[in-house]
Amino acid sequence: MEKNWSQLQILTNPENFELVTNALIIQQITGIENLNHDRGLAIYLPSEQLTKDWCHQLQITLNQLGLTDSAYQLQIIANVNMHWGQNWAPYYQPVRISHFMSIIPSWQKDLVQSPYDILMDPQESFGSGEHATTKLCLQALEEVVNHQESLIDVGTGTGILAIAAAKLGVKTLYGYDISDEAIVVAQKNFNLNCPQEKFQVAVNSLLDNITNSAEIITANMLEEPIRALIPQLAPHLKANGHVIISGILETKIANITQLLKQEHLAIIKISAAQGWGCIIAQKERG
Amino acid sequence: MEKNWSQLQILTNPENFELVTNALIIQQITGIENLNHDRGLAIYLPSEQLTKDWCHQLQITLNQLGLTDSAYQLQIIANVNMHWGQNWAPYYQPVRISHFMSIIPSWQKDLVQSPYDILMDPQESFGSGEHATTKLCLQALEEVVNHQESLIDVGTGTGILAIAAAKLGVKTLYGYDISDEAIVVAQKNFNLNCPQEKFQVAVNSLLDNITNSAEIITANMLEEPIRALIPQLAPHLKANGHVIISGILETKIANITQLLKQEHLAIIKISAAQGWGCIIAQKERG
Repeated sequence: MEKNWSQLQILTNPENFELVTNALIIQQITGIENLNHDRGLAIYLPSEQLTKDWCHQLQITLNQLGLTDSAYQLQIIANVNMHWGQNWAPYYQPVRISHFMSIIPSWQKDLVQSPYDILMDPQESFGSGEHATTKLCLQALEEVVNHQESLIDVGTGTGILAIAAAKLGVKTLYGYDISDEAIVVAQKNFNLNCPQEKFQVAVNSLLDNITNSAEIITANMLEEPIRALIPQLAPHLKANGHVIISGILETKIANITQLLKQEHLAIIKISAAQGWGCIIAQKERG
Repeated sequence: MEKNWSQLQILTNPENFELVTNALIIQQITGIENLNHDRGLAIYLPSEQLTKDWCHQLQITLNQLGLTDSAYQLQIIANVNMHWGQNWAPYYQPVRISHFMSIIPSWQKDLVQSPYDILMDPQESFGSGEHATTKLCLQALEEVVNHQESLIDVGTGTGILAIAAAKLGVKTLYGYDISDEAIVVAQKNFNLNCPQEKFQVAVNSLLDNITNSAEIITANMLEEPIRALIPQLAPHLKANGHVIISGILETKIANITQLLKQEHLAIIKISAAQGWGCIIAQKERG
């Protein structure tokens, strides 16, 4: 895990932050920080990955979302060489999800107030940028989880949705991710929060070759994998089971609800914040 | 309160229930029941109020929402003369709002499981028809209420939003409604649920001549009064305070968010279920 890291600063006005965040998430970046005095946003990438090509691709995405080149400036600070959870620590603050649940940096354990609070070690995949979709998913879980259901979390990442589900009472938890690293991080975060519970994680692409079914399936991913996942949902859902889908741009919600309906999943609730959308759907009877 | 009541049955296919419910709510009807075997929906009105003119207005509204005359049939059962909470009792079931909160009929006290559960005496203004918007508002309150904020509930009706807010920790609660009857019912329901707390209710049109301000304002009303209320919101909101607006058709959300933005209220979250929408907005700094 010891890599050289570089920082990319995107200097722009606060009114463009939402759009830049969306562009970065589309580029698969989730750890996004506000620069002091709202000068812009910053991300960290392994130095060898933060190439001119990468920056050019970001410029294209920003353009596609409607931000002109003159509205922002990119600045690379090479080899910042930071230690996770140390130099980064001051940047992380608790994130309030609801009256009952907050996300709290692992080194601020003393801020935990509720049995539903979630400790998170930022690692490489935690940052303010992902909060909009994660927050919507966590709020949706509070609505959907009733008692001891089972849950499959597709693209589990940090494992945060499985952790929340376990805290809300779900007893049977499966998590899948295509990334080896994510699986390790998810299991570690889960053990940190729910040492008494069991979370079965595995490297897997979506639900390919998975035979389990569950009462709740969560998927906080980007649009492309979500589209590929949708036909796999109903066969892996128990009767009247719920799906929580997030990670889609607000403007794409209607397209995704259409696809869900084609698979006989009824739309229960739609929510949207900071340009991102979340859908709760339910398997129809019969 | 002893009136003669008549039942109006709207016989139609289940796929039209959402649309019929929307039409009835636009007609100011909130106590809507499913008829056995999904044959249609039913409402109760004082017999003298359930006139041919009233039914004709409903037909016009149904038409405007896209339901043709051949898709439904109206049937009046005159003078059903029922006693609230007795004959109606079997119709009411607990309504689950989230993992933490359910609405429970007052005669089923033994079903209360959580300190956030709300007991409701149906009276004349409680029914499944209002659940979509009420549910969205209650879920929004769980998100917004942090600790001991103050709250103003405009169009308080049954008082359910104030009750939920009090249970979530709000200490200073004001409720206004144009209906004398609502004020009495709201206070009674509040005392049933939160006998230790104080809820100041008064007959008032929107926030006209009100000088209080609060950290949270809720308004679960129809579109017309909401439009009239919007210019009154910011002056009655404390710095960074939140507004929860519901009771608008999903198709009208964009119009209402536009009006809120004009009043310097930032859109925090939008949610929609069963054709109805709810908006959380926040007063901008400065």
